[in-house]
Amino acid sequence: MPLAPWRSAIAHALHRNRSLVYARYLQMATVRTNGCPANRTIVFRGFLEESNQLKFVTDARSEKAEQIQQQPWAEVCWYFPNTREQFRITGHLTLVSSDYSLPILQKARVSIWQDLSDAARLQFAWPEPGTPRIKNKAAFEPPSPDLHEPLPNFCLLLLDPVQVDHLELRGEPQNRRLYHLDENQGWYCQEVNP
Amino acid sequence: MPLAPWRSAIAHALHRNRSLVYARYLQMATVRTNGCPANRTIVFRGFLEESNQLKFVTDARSEKAEQIQQQPWAEVCWYFPNTREQFRITGHLTLVSSDYSLPILQKARVSIWQDLSDAARLQFAWPEPGTPRIKNKAAFEPPSPDLHEPLPNFCLLLLDPVQVDHLELRGEPQNRRLYHLDENQGWYCQEVNP
Repeated sequence: MPLAPWRSAIAHALHRNRSLVYARYLQMATVRTNGCPANRTIVFRGFLEESNQLKFVTDARSEKAEQIQQQPWAEVCWYFPNTREQFRITGHLTLVSSDYSLPILQKARVSIWQDLSDAARLQFAWPEPGTPRIKNKAAFEPPSPDLHEPLPNFCLLLLDPVQVDHLELRGEPQNRRLYHLDENQGWYCQEVNP
Repeated sequence: MPLAPWRSAIAHALHRNRSLVYARYLQMATVRTNGCPANRTIVFRGFLEESNQLKFVTDARSEKAEQIQQQPWAEVCWYFPNTREQFRITGHLTLVSSDYSLPILQKARVSIWQDLSDAARLQFAWPEPGTPRIKNKAAFEPPSPDLHEPLPNFCLLLLDPVQVDHLELRGEPQNRRLYHLDENQGWYCQEVNP
C-alpha cells in the first residue's frame, strides 16, 4: 500500500516537534453509548507496517473499549506546538484484544507490548481504572508482567483514516488542506479556507 | 453561585503552565449530525462571571455551530504539559449568536469580542471556512471589523460542566479524581483508580 499523501506532513511535524515529548500525545474523540462525546489524551505509537493506520494502546477495561464496540468511528485532534499546526484525523477504530483472530494483528499486538517501557506495561496490571480508589499502595506495585506475553486486558488500537484536515496557523495567513479517501481508495487533496 | 471544587485545580494548572501559551488550548469533542465524533483545538477564554461555565469563541459558519444544534453535549480534553495533568470536562454547550435573546449573555458576547486581539477579530471577516480556498489574498486582508459591535457570525460558546475527570500523571503513582454535579446542583468528588 502506498503512503497516503498526508503522511509526509505528519512525519515533518513529528520531526520539527521532536524536542517536545508531548508532541506524540493527541486527543481522541469517540461517542459514548448514550450518544454523548468522549475525549481523552492518548499516545501515538507509530504507524502499522504496510498501512496508513495509526497505532495506540489501550486497556480492555477502559470506557473507550466499550464505546468502540457500538460506534467504531473516532476523530483524533493532534496539535503540534512548535510548528503551530493541527491535524484532525477521522477514521474507523479496530480494537485488537487478546482474542482477536487475525494473526498479523495479534503479532502486532505482541510486538507493541514488548516495545513499551516497563512503567507503561505495569499500568495494565493496576486495579480496574475508574472504580473507587484502592488505598493500598501495594495494588499499584504489582510484580512486573511477562515481557513476552501481553496481559489479557492489553489491546492494540488502530485508527484507519478516511479524512485528514491539516491546518497550519503559520501560513499566509493560514493554510488548510483537506485529504479525503475516495471510493477507489485513492486520496484526494483539496485546499480550503481556514 | 459558589466556585465548583475543581476550579482551584484548573487555576493552579493554568498558573503552573503559564509559560506555555498553548496551555490555554484544549480539544473539544462534539458529535456530527451523522453520529460520528468531531474534535478540534479551541482556545480557553476564561470563565463566565458568576458561573462555572468555560468561555470560547466560534464562527457561526463553522461545522461545530451546526453540530451543537442537534447534540449540545461536548467533552473537552485539556492537557497541561508542564504539570503532566489532564482534565476531561463533560458539559452542555450554549451557542450565543448575534440573535441570542438573553441580554446578559449578549453583553458577554460583545465584551469578549472587544477583548480579542485584532488578528483574532479579523478571522471572522475571512471567507467561509472549509469551502474551496479563495486564491485572492485580498480576501484574507479585509478592513478591520468594528471594535464595538461584533460581526454577525461571531459567537460566544459556553460549556456548562456536569462532570470533571482530573488525572495527575505525577502522582503516587498517579492520582485521579472524578467530580460530579448531583441533582441538587452540588459537586460530589470521588477518588478513583487511574
